[in-house]
Amino acid sequence: MINVHGGDIYNIKVKHDFSANINPLGIPSEVLEAISTSLRDIVNYPDVNCSKLRNALSSKLHIPQQYFYIGNGAADALFTLALAKKPKTALLVSPTFAEYEQALKSVDCKISYYELQDSNGFAITEDYITALSPNLDMIILCNPNNPVGNTISHEVVLHILKRCFELNITVVVDECFNDFLKNPEYHTLLEALDRYNNLVILQAFTKMYAMPGLRLGYLMTANQQLITKMQEVSQPWSVSTLAQVAGVVAVKQEDYVSKTREYVEKEREFLCKALFDMGIRYFEPEANYILFYDAIDWYKELLEEGILIRDCSNYRGLSKGYYRIAVRTREENEVLIEVMRRIKSVRNYIGIS
Amino acid sequence: MINVHGGDIYNIKVKHDFSANINPLGIPSEVLEAISTSLRDIVNYPDVNCSKLRNALSSKLHIPQQYFYIGNGAADALFTLALAKKPKTALLVSPTFAEYEQALKSVDCKISYYELQDSNGFAITEDYITALSPNLDMIILCNPNNPVGNTISHEVVLHILKRCFELNITVVVDECFNDFLKNPEYHTLLEALDRYNNLVILQAFTKMYAMPGLRLGYLMTANQQLITKMQEVSQPWSVSTLAQVAGVVAVKQEDYVSKTREYVEKEREFLCKALFDMGIRYFEPEANYILFYDAIDWYKELLEEGILIRDCSNYRGLSKGYYRIAVRTREENEVLIEVMRRIKSVRNYIGIS
Repeated sequence: MINVHGGDIYNIKVKHDFSANINPLGIPSEVLEAISTSLRDIVNYPDVNCSKLRNALSSKLHIPQQYFYIGNGAADALFTLALAKKPKTALLVSPTFAEYEQALKSVDCKISYYELQDSNGFAITEDYITALSPNLDMIILCNPNNPVGNTISHEVVLHILKRCFELNITVVVDECFNDFLKNPEYHTLLEALDRYNNLVILQAFTKMYAMPGLRLGYLMTANQQLITKMQEVSQPWSVSTLAQVAGVVAVKQEDYVSKTREYVEKEREFLCKALFDMGIRYFEPEANYILFYDAIDWYKELLEEGILIRDCSNYRGLSKGYYRIAVRTREENEVLIEVMRRIKSVRNYIGIS
Repeated sequence: MINVHGGDIYNIKVKHDFSANINPLGIPSEVLEAISTSLRDIVNYPDVNCSKLRNALSSKLHIPQQYFYIGNGAADALFTLALAKKPKTALLVSPTFAEYEQALKSVDCKISYYELQDSNGFAITEDYITALSPNLDMIILCNPNNPVGNTISHEVVLHILKRCFELNITVVVDECFNDFLKNPEYHTLLEALDRYNNLVILQAFTKMYAMPGLRLGYLMTANQQLITKMQEVSQPWSVSTLAQVAGVVAVKQEDYVSKTREYVEKEREFLCKALFDMGIRYFEPEANYILFYDAIDWYKELLEEGILIRDCSNYRGLSKGYYRIAVRTREENEVLIEVMRRIKSVRNYIGIS
C-alpha cells in the first residue's frame, strides 16, 4: 500500500518531517508518564464505554457524555459514521482532507464536489449554500481546512448548518485543527450541537497532543440514534487501554495547549515572513501548517536535503506546485528556511526559477 | 453501552476475572519491554503498511507478506472484511462468538443459523455441509469454537472449504484460539490458503500474548483483490505504533507459546477434574476456556465472592445455565474451585441443588 498522506517516515529516511501536522512541542510529559505507568493494564480488555475519557471530555467541553463517540483516531470515528449513516449522496469541497472521500466510498456513496478557487484563497463563502439541495444526505467541512489552513467564517458555517437542517442533510465538521487557531472558541460549533441534531463534530488528540501513533479521536453529536447505530456497526474494543489513559491526562493539559498556540503563532509568522521574502506565494495560514505554491519542485529538492514536506499534487482540486509544510520548532524551521534560501539562490544564480 | 462480552472489569469490581480468555502467564516481559522503549515513537504516525510486523509474521508462518491484513484487533479485521465483501447472505453456527453477527449486520447481511446441538457436544459434523447452498456469500466458523472450546475435525473443515469453493462462498475461519490447542498445526488451515482463495483466516495477538488492551489482530487470505478492497474501505492508520512493535516481538516468543500450551493443558485438566467431582456437566475443552452447564446461577453466586465468569445465556443457541470459565493460574483456579465447592456444599446442606 502506498501512503498517499504525509508522515511516511518508514519508507523515506528523513532528518526533518514537515509533512505531518503534529504539535512541535511534542507529547506532554504527563501523557507519556500516564501511558508508561499503565503499560501492564493492557492485559485486560479496554473499557468499551471509555467512561473515564468521556467523563473528562464532558467536564472540559460542557457537552453531555452521551454526545461522544470515541474512536481509534478521528479517521475511525469518520469511517464508523459513514457505515452507520450509509449516505447515498454527499458533497465535499476540493481541495480537502482525502479521507472523507475514502470513508464515503467505503459505503458506495455518490460524491459531488464544490470546487474552491485559488483566486480567492480557497475560501468557503455564502456561495457554497447554492450547492445544497434536498438530494444530499451529508456534507463534510474541514474547519480550518486541510491543506489550506483557512477557516470558514462563523456566520457562513452557521448559515450552512441552518440550511442543511432545513434540508435534512447531516453536517460533519472536522475541527481536528481547531485547537491551533488563535480563537478556537469563536470557530468551534460546539455550542450549536444542542440546537442542531444534524451536526456532527470530529476531533482528534493526534495533532495537539502529538500522539498520532497511539490513535485517539472522537466525534460529538446530539443525535443519540446515530451514536447508538455507530456502536452497533463497530467493534466494542476499538479504543486501546493506553489511548484512553493518555486521553484522560491530555484533556487536563490546558497550559500546554495555550503555550502551543502562542508558540505556533510565532513560528507561523516566522515561516510566512521567510516565504514572503523568498517571493513564494502562500495561503494565509490560521493553524499549524502552511500551504504554498511555487514553480520549484520543493518536495524533490528538500527531500535531497533530508527534509520531508507534503507534495499536495494528489489532492483533488490541486496540482503540481502546491506544497504544505507543518510549523515545527524554531530550530527546525530555521533549517528548512536556510535550505530553501540556498536552493533558491543557486537556482537564481544559474538562471532558472 | 452495555458490555455483553466477558472482561468487563470496569463496571464490576472483581478479584479474579475468569470471564476473559487471556493467557494466564500474562504479557511476555520482552513484549512489555519493547513497548516501554518505544513509547516516544507515538509522536509519529504508525507505519500504514505494518511492514516489520508483516515481515515477522511472514517469516514465522511461511505465508507471503501480501496475504496479511493487520487490524486494530481481530474484530477490526473482521468488520473491515464485512465492509469490503458486503455479503448479502451468510451462514453462522449457534452458539458462537457474537461479533460475527454484529459485523455482518453492519453491512445489512441476511444471516441464517446452523444450530449446533448440546446432545452431541455442539460439534460441527459432516451434516453441516447440507446447509451450504449457492445462495450463500459467506460462512464464518470458529475453530476452536467460542464459547464451547471444541474443534472441527480437519477432514470436515477441509470438506466444507472444498464445497464452499465450488459454490463460490467465502469461508472465514477464526483461529484466534488455535495457539492454545494441543496440536495447533493439525487444526490450522494455513497450508490451505494457497489452494483456496475463498479462504480467510482470522488470528489475534490478544489471547496468547495477553495484550487485549493494546488491540492487535490480523487476517490472511490469498485473495489479493480482497486485501486491496479492505485497504480501500478502512483508514490507513488503524494499527497503533505500539501494537506493531509489540507484535514484532511477540511473534518471536516461541518458548513462551509452548510453555503456555503445557501450562494451560495441565490447568485445564485440573479444572475439569474438579468440575467432574462436583457433578457439573462440562464440554470437553481443547483451548484455554471451559463451557459448563449447571442449575446453580454460578454467575451471580461467584460474583458475590468477587469472581467474574461469563454467563453464556445471551449467546444465540444457549440459555440460562451455560457458563464459561477461562483457564487461569493454578493459584486462581484453586480459589475458584474452592469457592465453587463451598457454594455447592452449602446448597447440598440446605437441600437445594
